[in-house]
Amino acid sequence: MNKEPTTTPRASTRPPRLRPRPALRLLAADLHHHLGEPVRVAGWVHRRRQLKSVSFLILRDRTGLAQVTLTGPAAQALDAFPEETVVQADGMAISNQQAPGGVEIHEATLTALSGPASPPPFDLYRPGVPAGLPVILDHAGVALRHPVLRAPFEVAAAAVAGFRSCLDDAGFTEIHTPKIVATATESGANVFGIDYFGRTAFLAQSPQFYKQAMVGVFERVYEVGPVFRAEPHDTARHLAQYTSLDAELGFINDHRDVMDILTEVLTGMIATVSDRASQAVERLGITLPPVPDAIPEIDFRDAQALIAEGTGAEPGSEPDLAPADERWLSHWALREHASAFLFVTGYPTIKRPFYTHRDPDRPERTRSFDLLFNGLELVTGGQRLHRHDDYLSALSARGQNPAHYAGYLEIFAHGMPPHGGFAIGLERFVARLTGADNIRSTTLFPRDRHRLTP
Amino acid sequence: MNKEPTTTPRASTRPPRLRPRPALRLLAADLHHHLGEPVRVAGWVHRRRQLKSVSFLILRDRTGLAQVTLTGPAAQALDAFPEETVVQADGMAISNQQAPGGVEIHEATLTALSGPASPPPFDLYRPGVPAGLPVILDHAGVALRHPVLRAPFEVAAAAVAGFRSCLDDAGFTEIHTPKIVATATESGANVFGIDYFGRTAFLAQSPQFYKQAMVGVFERVYEVGPVFRAEPHDTARHLAQYTSLDAELGFINDHRDVMDILTEVLTGMIATVSDRASQAVERLGITLPPVPDAIPEIDFRDAQALIAEGTGAEPGSEPDLAPADERWLSHWALREHASAFLFVTGYPTIKRPFYTHRDPDRPERTRSFDLLFNGLELVTGGQRLHRHDDYLSALSARGQNPAHYAGYLEIFAHGMPPHGGFAIGLERFVARLTGADNIRSTTLFPRDRHRLTP
Repeated sequence: MNKEPTTTPRASTRPPRLRPRPALRLLAADLHHHLGEPVRVAGWVHRRRQLKSVSFLILRDRTGLAQVTLTGPAAQALDAFPEETVVQADGMAISNQQAPGGVEIHEATLTALSGPASPPPFDLYRPGVPAGLPVILDHAGVALRHPVLRAPFEVAAAAVAGFRSCLDDAGFTEIHTPKIVATATESGANVFGIDYFGRTAFLAQSPQFYKQAMVGVFERVYEVGPVFRAEPHDTARHLAQYTSLDAELGFINDHRDVMDILTEVLTGMIATVSDRASQAVERLGITLPPVPDAIPEIDFRDAQALIAEGTGAEPGSEPDLAPADERWLSHWALREHASAFLFVTGYPTIKRPFYTHRDPDRPERTRSFDLLFNGLELVTGGQRLHRHDDYLSALSARGQNPAHYAGYLEIFAHGMPPHGGFAIGLERFVARLTGADNIRSTTLFPRDRHRLTP
Repeated sequence: MNKEPTTTPRASTRPPRLRPRPALRLLAADLHHHLGEPVRVAGWVHRRRQLKSVSFLILRDRTGLAQVTLTGPAAQALDAFPEETVVQADGMAISNQQAPGGVEIHEATLTALSGPASPPPFDLYRPGVPAGLPVILDHAGVALRHPVLRAPFEVAAAAVAGFRSCLDDAGFTEIHTPKIVATATESGANVFGIDYFGRTAFLAQSPQFYKQAMVGVFERVYEVGPVFRAEPHDTARHLAQYTSLDAELGFINDHRDVMDILTEVLTGMIATVSDRASQAVERLGITLPPVPDAIPEIDFRDAQALIAEGTGAEPGSEPDLAPADERWLSHWALREHASAFLFVTGYPTIKRPFYTHRDPDRPERTRSFDLLFNGLELVTGGQRLHRHDDYLSALSARGQNPAHYAGYLEIFAHGMPPHGGFAIGLERFVARLTGADNIRSTTLFPRDRHRLTP
């Protein structure tokens, strides 16, 4: 009932240890520490198996599976708990080497914590995934409960933790920058427009300008956040929103200092996946690739010649690599250098953004790199321009108006050190690591030209 | 010169230890370990002082200040290095208790790493900040170099690290959810529209629906990311984009389990600020508030009565607290309970979103809370509905069409545990912690009705 306010109301200082606590819920993975004890578990009905005199309920929680064995009338009660119903089971933990984790729960009392669940879009208990990508994506909130479909996101969480931890240790500061901007960052193409209090604004395609500005403040910065690209094409490797792991650092000599930090970061990411997401790695049946101390590197033009030699095609004269080229180079790096990673350096100036630092010895080439990982461009990075005059020249050479970049250019008029950085696409990284064919399998709720829900 | 591709191109496996490394740059804070040694430092010209026979250059890097002492012709050369120019200084580290950090660099050679800097919008070397907020915001990329203006962002980075670390330890999984959505999350008001491949979509006002869905997958999740509100009003505490620290957890008994986790999280955040950002805390001259083991709590109606009693006004009958009420209650909690934090619980159903769990004993009230911190609502949270039928009833009671929420409602048809969560506004948290009057002082590049740049 509504308690009426009294004339002397008091804040009650809650003493958490004194208020009655319900029996502690144990997690499936911890049950083996409680053999012979009364235990409580709670989770989803993963699967039921009803035999003549005994029934088994396999319960799923975030740590794994637990077997609840029911006999007598309780065995029949399972009819009321279809798969995916959330239940709590109180019983005795008994050793049973046949059961998941070597434990089963006997003499159990079941309590429903949710209503009886409707059948999921496909059987979540089957070891394989009996559904195609469209069904999974249409029902992501339920489908991702499947332990195999969930696994890439456990890998992603560990990878991001490794990214941050490595950069924290190297003196980087985490930043949060605007996702609503007045000017398209990378180019006018593929940018989403937004109605900003009656004006037109854009969704940021990258935090590039802001992370550079923050090198002037913190020297070394990183950001983990969404970036937005209005990709008009349907491909297995592009999305309208993805998670960009951005880093930028000052006081470098050239792009090789950036490549060194990136190599350390990748090493830290994969080590953290191995450390924190080992169950997910096992569930996916994958082997994590070692990151070489020195990732092999090839110059852009040498790469084109190598591909021509290897495929018998005419040497490429394009200023960029095609997806097939990237796959070919990755196979080559794996074969010749036993490396899943390959740096391609020295991309032509014409194909890189205006802020890219030129190679002083070859002005038509840049101090830039891409990192290929298992056949796909995973990272783009390089040294940036840092002198105000160089920015004015670079914009002028492209026929662009410096006034459109006034807020950005200001920082260079007030002293910026030589600097550079990189951006890793998180979903791509996890897709390459887990062998997913489509980036949509490593995105919780992907967004593309055709998909805006769920 | 452009190197022609040869007929046998090879990837060079870079041996980083063999390629010639330039002299190692030392950071200002580490100089005292190198007394009597040749050293190299690099950073911004923070201040110059030119006397008759000697000049001093105070150099600023990310760790602090270093003094370079110049005599003879070198002393005059300082004219070429105006404040904010980026320079490198090579010299001998000598003990001098008068100098910052007890070290000065003698016999120095200066090299410019940037062009000579234009004068910044205000003197960055003055201990106080000789500029108002509009100037600072218009020139954020340069202004935030001021050590005092930079400090709140060091506090923010540490606070977020504490948030994550605490939740990682408690078995939470980090997630990344869509910021482009088909339906407004919280209400139709204050939402930004976006042109999504010719359709109308919206910027997410919160990750609420997605974090709930992910409770079905991971049980415990958190997200650190931008949220967007088309706030039509100019206030010191609202922005069009802010960083939301969201958490959601399943298998709770009621909202008090959420309050317990939140109390732990706040304790961890402030401990990490103390640990990782102690220099920034010192620079700001602030004292970090202790988080009580049990944060005091007051029921919403009791709070209204208390305010009426304390101010002599009529008892409030509104279903929400005004900003002045929140300030009054915070003062009261500090006075009566020596706590900068206060939970207000039991908000009226009518003022909370449809997904809020009602108090079964008082259906016109909810299992929800706000956390006030130093006079301002910092956190909103509570238990959510978890049964499909309850959602249908709640939407129907508000005259809303369940079809608009089909993707969200699906998860509840397939078994969801009792769950709840909270969202902390990062910029508000840092503003309250650092005593900033305006949330724009704790946002790198704020966005509001009038501000879209820099």
